[in-house]
Amino acid sequence: MLQTDKIDKIIKIALEEDISSYDITTENVFKNSDYSIATIIAKEDGILAGIEVFKRVFYILDNKIEFKQYYDDGDTIKDGNLIIELSGSTINLLKGERTALNLLQRLCGIATLTNKYCRKVKDYNVKVTDTRKTTPGLRHIEKYAVKVGGGANHRYNLSDGVLIKDNHIKACNGIKNAVEKIRGNIPHTIKIEVETENLDDVKEAIEAKADIIMLDNMKYEEMSKAVELIKKSVLIEASGNVDFDNIENYAKTGVDIISVGKLTHSFKSMDISMKIK
Amino acid sequence: MLQTDKIDKIIKIALEEDISSYDITTENVFKNSDYSIATIIAKEDGILAGIEVFKRVFYILDNKIEFKQYYDDGDTIKDGNLIIELSGSTINLLKGERTALNLLQRLCGIATLTNKYCRKVKDYNVKVTDTRKTTPGLRHIEKYAVKVGGGANHRYNLSDGVLIKDNHIKACNGIKNAVEKIRGNIPHTIKIEVETENLDDVKEAIEAKADIIMLDNMKYEEMSKAVELIKKSVLIEASGNVDFDNIENYAKTGVDIISVGKLTHSFKSMDISMKIK
Amino acid sequence: MLQTDKIDKIIKIALEEDISSYDITTENVFKNSDYSIATIIAKEDGILAGIEVFKRVFYILDNKIEFKQYYDDGDTIKDGNLIIELSGSTINLLKGERTALNLLQRLCGIATLTNKYCRKVKDYNVKVTDTRKTTPGLRHIEKYAVKVGGGANHRYNLSDGVLIKDNHIKACNGIKNAVEKIRGNIPHTIKIEVETENLDDVKEAIEAKADIIMLDNMKYEEMSKAVELIKKSVLIEASGNVDFDNIENYAKTGVDIISVGKLTHSFKSMDISMKIK
Amino acid sequence: MLQTDKIDKIIKIALEEDISSYDITTENVFKNSDYSIATIIAKEDGILAGIEVFKRVFYILDNKIEFKQYYDDGDTIKDGNLIIELSGSTINLLKGERTALNLLQRLCGIATLTNKYCRKVKDYNVKVTDTRKTTPGLRHIEKYAVKVGGGANHRYNLSDGVLIKDNHIKACNGIKNAVEKIRGNIPHTIKIEVETENLDDVKEAIEAKADIIMLDNMKYEEMSKAVELIKKSVLIEASGNVDFDNIENYAKTGVDIISVGKLTHSFKSMDISMKIK
Amino acid sequence: MLQTDKIDKIIKIALEEDISSYDITTENVFKNSDYSIATIIAKEDGILAGIEVFKRVFYILDNKIEFKQYYDDGDTIKDGNLIIELSGSTINLLKGERTALNLLQRLCGIATLTNKYCRKVKDYNVKVTDTRKTTPGLRHIEKYAVKVGGGANHRYNLSDGVLIKDNHIKACNGIKNAVEKIRGNIPHTIKIEVETENLDDVKEAIEAKADIIMLDNMKYEEMSKAVELIKKSVLIEASGNVDFDNIENYAKTGVDIISVGKLTHSFKSMDISMKIK
Amino acid sequence: MLQTDKIDKIIKIALEEDISSYDITTENVFKNSDYSIATIIAKEDGILAGIEVFKRVFYILDNKIEFKQYYDDGDTIKDGNLIIELSGSTINLLKGERTALNLLQRLCGIATLTNKYCRKVKDYNVKVTDTRKTTPGLRHIEKYAVKVGGGANHRYNLSDGVLIKDNHIKACNGIKNAVEKIRGNIPHTIKIEVETENLDDVKEAIEAKADIIMLDNMKYEEMSKAVELIKKSVLIEASGNVDFDNIENYAKTGVDIISVGKLTHSFKSMDISMKIK
Repeated sequence: MLQTDKIDKIIKIALEEDISSYDITTENVFKNSDYSIATIIAKEDGILAGIEVFKRVFYILDNKIEFKQYYDDGDTIKDGNLIIELSGSTINLLKGERTALNLLQRLCGIATLTNKYCRKVKDYNVKVTDTRKTTPGLRHIEKYAVKVGGGANHRYNLSDGVLIKDNHIKACNGIKNAVEKIRGNIPHTIKIEVETENLDDVKEAIEAKADIIMLDNMKYEEMSKAVELIKKSVLIEASGNVDFDNIENYAKTGVDIISVGKLTHSFKSMDISMKIK
Repeated sequence: MLQTDKIDKIIKIALEEDISSYDITTENVFKNSDYSIATIIAKEDGILAGIEVFKRVFYILDNKIEFKQYYDDGDTIKDGNLIIELSGSTINLLKGERTALNLLQRLCGIATLTNKYCRKVKDYNVKVTDTRKTTPGLRHIEKYAVKVGGGANHRYNLSDGVLIKDNHIKACNGIKNAVEKIRGNIPHTIKIEVETENLDDVKEAIEAKADIIMLDNMKYEEMSKAVELIKKSVLIEASGNVDFDNIENYAKTGVDIISVGKLTHSFKSMDISMKIK
Repeated sequence: MLQTDKIDKIIKIALEEDISSYDITTENVFKNSDYSIATIIAKEDGILAGIEVFKRVFYILDNKIEFKQYYDDGDTIKDGNLIIELSGSTINLLKGERTALNLLQRLCGIATLTNKYCRKVKDYNVKVTDTRKTTPGLRHIEKYAVKVGGGANHRYNLSDGVLIKDNHIKACNGIKNAVEKIRGNIPHTIKIEVETENLDDVKEAIEAKADIIMLDNMKYEEMSKAVELIKKSVLIEASGNVDFDNIENYAKTGVDIISVGKLTHSFKSMDISMKIK
Repeated sequence: MLQTDKIDKIIKIALEEDISSYDITTENVFKNSDYSIATIIAKEDGILAGIEVFKRVFYILDNKIEFKQYYDDGDTIKDGNLIIELSGSTINLLKGERTALNLLQRLCGIATLTNKYCRKVKDYNVKVTDTRKTTPGLRHIEKYAVKVGGGANHRYNLSDGVLIKDNHIKACNGIKNAVEKIRGNIPHTIKIEVETENLDDVKEAIEAKADIIMLDNMKYEEMSKAVELIKKSVLIEASGNVDFDNIENYAKTGVDIISVGKLTHSFKSMDISMKIK
Repeated sequence: MLQTDKIDKIIKIALEEDISSYDITTENVFKNSDYSIATIIAKEDGILAGIEVFKRVFYILDNKIEFKQYYDDGDTIKDGNLIIELSGSTINLLKGERTALNLLQRLCGIATLTNKYCRKVKDYNVKVTDTRKTTPGLRHIEKYAVKVGGGANHRYNLSDGVLIKDNHIKACNGIKNAVEKIRGNIPHTIKIEVETENLDDVKEAIEAKADIIMLDNMKYEEMSKAVELIKKSVLIEASGNVDFDNIENYAKTGVDIISVGKLTHSFKSMDISMKIK
Repeated sequence: MLQTDKIDKIIKIALEEDISSYDITTENVFKNSDYSIATIIAKEDGILAGIEVFKRVFYILDNKIEFKQYYDDGDTIKDGNLIIELSGSTINLLKGERTALNLLQRLCGIATLTNKYCRKVKDYNVKVTDTRKTTPGLRHIEKYAVKVGGGANHRYNLSDGVLIKDNHIKACNGIKNAVEKIRGNIPHTIKIEVETENLDDVKEAIEAKADIIMLDNMKYEEMSKAVELIKKSVLIEASGNVDFDNIENYAKTGVDIISVGKLTHSFKSMDISMKIK
């Protein structure tokens, strides 16, 4: 699911950012022929995500670096675990360290947070999804990390799913008009989701034959009523300031999907370090 | 200090990520001639950072969008404050919304967090700096946000400052050799910083005439002794798992600089929303 | 619906292709200050498509060229009609001529051909759509031209719609398994289409709750039976070597959509010429 | 004659167009380790062109895919012939299929059409050439396909050959002035071609010592007279709405070159398909 | 003749090279609103070339900077002359200074050197041309500077002119075979030049109907004989270690063209400086 | 110290410049399977620099070309020495020849010139450095060549070293204010250099605790006095129209560093040629 061309684009920008002339410390200490083994060790517990991205940084710098991998994406990692061992040019190991760790730590952070949310609602028949609130430039890999953590993906971008929001509804004088107007113009392969704020909206969305109904910022009770109204004829998504404390309340309402912006905009990086043996 | 060419690079990638064909919702609802006013409103307190980046997203989409700006970078914003008003093509306002907010919310998050750390140690003669643990692709704007929040910047990258770490020291058989070897090879305009882990290292770094001495992961007491040893003849930096709870302990040791990776790798985005009037 | 950034990418490549050093004829004849008016005239009948793309070529070369536009995309043009008048630097008008016409003529060719197909089946409740058989690099504008000609768009690419084909079905041991496997892994916003080759496939696709069923290369009679089986519970698409002669036969079977690769892979450019007044 | 860097540019754009996140069908059905053999089979007769371009698509996606090639560019292919066999990762074979075929089918279409024109005039001492009316972004490979089909290339672009047209002549007050003005300014390595519309123009072009004289849109009889006038002292090119029906009439006039825009702007793709074994 | 897109490419690389984060001196001293006038003054005599390139650097940094231009490309400049005055943002004037001067000084250096060579042979009917020995990345502007200095351009690159050298001749068993082989394969718009090393080569090149004959590294006397043999039926180019001291000897032999690699590979930059008023 | 990604950028531009369609001479003479050995031979004495850049050109064209290298960067080469032997596809050897030599000859020219300057002042305790007056696009490799020649590098660009010049000083009302203002705003890892024009400036710079003091365009005697004043407490740099004739006078004043713009803006390429065996 990771596309090399999309990963490389951001890695190359990151390496350019980090090396404007050359690595003036490392390249003045080590010789091109110096060889080392480096170990990547977790400094806290979490879910591994992005090991291919990590390796790709070194591959781009130097395709002769070799890897001995102990865990795979999705594995649970404990503080102190050896994740992967790298061997090759000391200079290139040190030059890639920061960029590779910056990426890996972020992706593990997202997977770990997503996993925590998913476990909290595991007894409900509900999916936890990401949103479009991803880090600019990193959407491809951040949405991947959400899946690795056990979450599901929402639409990828503005082009592959319709989401009719308040502004669109207002402009069309109602949900029904909006859905009809859009349905006539988009590929028949695209689903239509409607954002609703109250039960009247929900009724109108059902009539308009929306494919997905989003319940946005509703009280839990109102949300439960909405779920009843819809009766599983279409997918139901809950949205709006979901956090770790309140996600179970959302799950209880019976919705199918809970979308959580925090998964990609307010995670913390997992602590992982590299040591030269 | 923000360079348009560097900002544009990431904005263009972000817009490409978000629009693979076109915005199938908005462009099927609104006409090219539809015009709106959009307001950007804070949903929590924080420090504003990145308003030029935010505006640049819309400029790239449509250079006819106009702005009425109520706050500037560095200003303290309260929940409910109107930050900026945009007027122009409804389609382009909606197409740029998510990308522009994704950037602004992250930068405000960093500035706000940095500011919180700085205020905690404001009674000490110490600077709080960032590290190279920035989001790949966003270093330029994240380091800017740190300054906006009242922090200072550490070296920008591997090319503009020497930082001699354990691996370099080992390879050279000691700090002194490492410093000498590097000094002969780098531009005379570059400073040399040495990472030390104990008082013996510190003494060797002083003898080697390092320009900056980093005290890495030392106990507070040992750090105080190191500061005494060095006696302000060179700059002293404290580093290693600094967080909001322990930063004051570091400050008390008398160091000049405390570098904090968390400023850019474990912040949370500030909540800001856009409404079409 | 046309995105400037996507258009510009191909225009810039085309201009680079066409001018490796400079326009050695025109730039040695005319002075930078020479000014002309150029007229763009249809040399055969057709549907106009791509006038913004045409203008964008000149804008990229010289943003001071002015336009007086007589027709809009979607308009029917007759042999001899003046489509648009350009005024500005003679050198830049001549330098952009070929690239701009190459694009305009192709897009008009596609819109005209699509329109011809659509008119042929206008008495049936059926949509004529494009496929992914577009010219590499030109998908964005070619799919646009199909819409201008009265056609509809199929999925944009491999990422925004599922199309389960024979190879996928074989790998999963049947349509049902394939649909289930995929449904669990994709965003809930994405529709699933299944390619079927006979009535058994169709039945299995109905049971699997496919969102769209494609009838691929079926005889017209079998197709009619398939339509009956499905009874409009899901969308039905006919596909496979559709051409101008047989499209009405497909329409008669009652399918909702007919997809036609020829719209974008075997059209002929419309004849349009530029004259300097 | 095909330059990898030029081919790669358009292939990368095409792959980006076709995969905005990932191939959501194929990558959810197959595992990374799944392996297949795919056969590429002609579904109609034609001339093969672009097999290296076809292979390059897969190479860019996955440099471990292997090829067993049965025909080479320039070979005549019959309906049903196996052109090439691919073996490798099933996922990458399916991801590259459409982009690779889109390119191959177009290039075979051009070579086949060119070949048809060339055979029609094979008894005359005349070359059939392309023009600059190529698909934007594909000039390099389309001009290659023309050669594969037995045609010759006209100038590549505005920089490598002078073509003095009516607008240039008018601006210089006559052909002679135009030729002189240009000859003094261009590299001595560049030939000068003049477009003529009648016998007077032809005479003036001869006097001006043009290297090539183009007879544009002349009646066949007038063209024959022009050929006689010029008496092979310089190359003679016929141009203007040449098609398959009238090309022989042009050839009979004795011109050296006939340039045909239709070769690259109004061909139809050759039907070729890929099957997974 | 200067193409903005080609100039911008190298300017953007140069600005990125020169500003990896920001201009830490200037941007910490001046405010965005600071405004200055800068004067560009010659510090030695020479020929002006590249003033548009110079201005373009500032335009790319800040399109509000204004220019008051006192000389044009081709003008003779004396030590102390005010060439151009710039007014606008002090920060941007200082940020662009070095990059703009680096370009201007090089181009003036080339024009000045070319002019010196041309004046030396002005009494002979001979053109002084450049070669392909240009600075990588700067060919477009360096060849322009040669023309500004009064020189002529040789072929632009490997694609727009044939130059048959010793290796090609050896591979074809003689000049005649080489010319014939190539003539059949290249566009009819392309001239063929043959490199000859002695009178036998020259005779063979005449028979082969080469369009241009290059006399490479011949003694002056032999060269004169070659010129006589050829008798102006084709263009004659002298080549090989031409310098300011020997160029007149070459001119005396009667050749049409003398190509000089030194014009672009061994010039010295003209001294020009910028002062803030 | 050479970074492949930075080298490749300029090589790719150079190859695109040189091959707009294809190499019409070589590719029409040789077959893809033709194989040759090429020798690179010095035609004058000098210091070798850039052999990796040279090899990279061929690697980018064709990664199967093999090298047998006789000298390394930094070695003294004599007229007639065989530097390196290449074996591989004749077509690719000839296509890369000019671009590879253009780069190698320039870099050897710079190293050779730098070496000449360094040897002239070898008996003084002084470093000869480059400046930012490098060829746009080539800074990375030109600064490398300076080091190969025995010189040292000055700051890489505007971002990695402060250089306070007259304009900055004027804007801040004095050196002291300027230094203070900047010191508070830049990373603590950055050194501050001040440009001085007379002894008063020097005194102020000392008081301001500048890290480096540049003596700009001072008379030798005044410079000696300045050196005495500063007494080695900070680094001292001499600058301003240094050339081969006067550099020893500068060295005699006792300065630590002499920066020479001519090293990169007024060198001459070293004569090196390629022969196919």
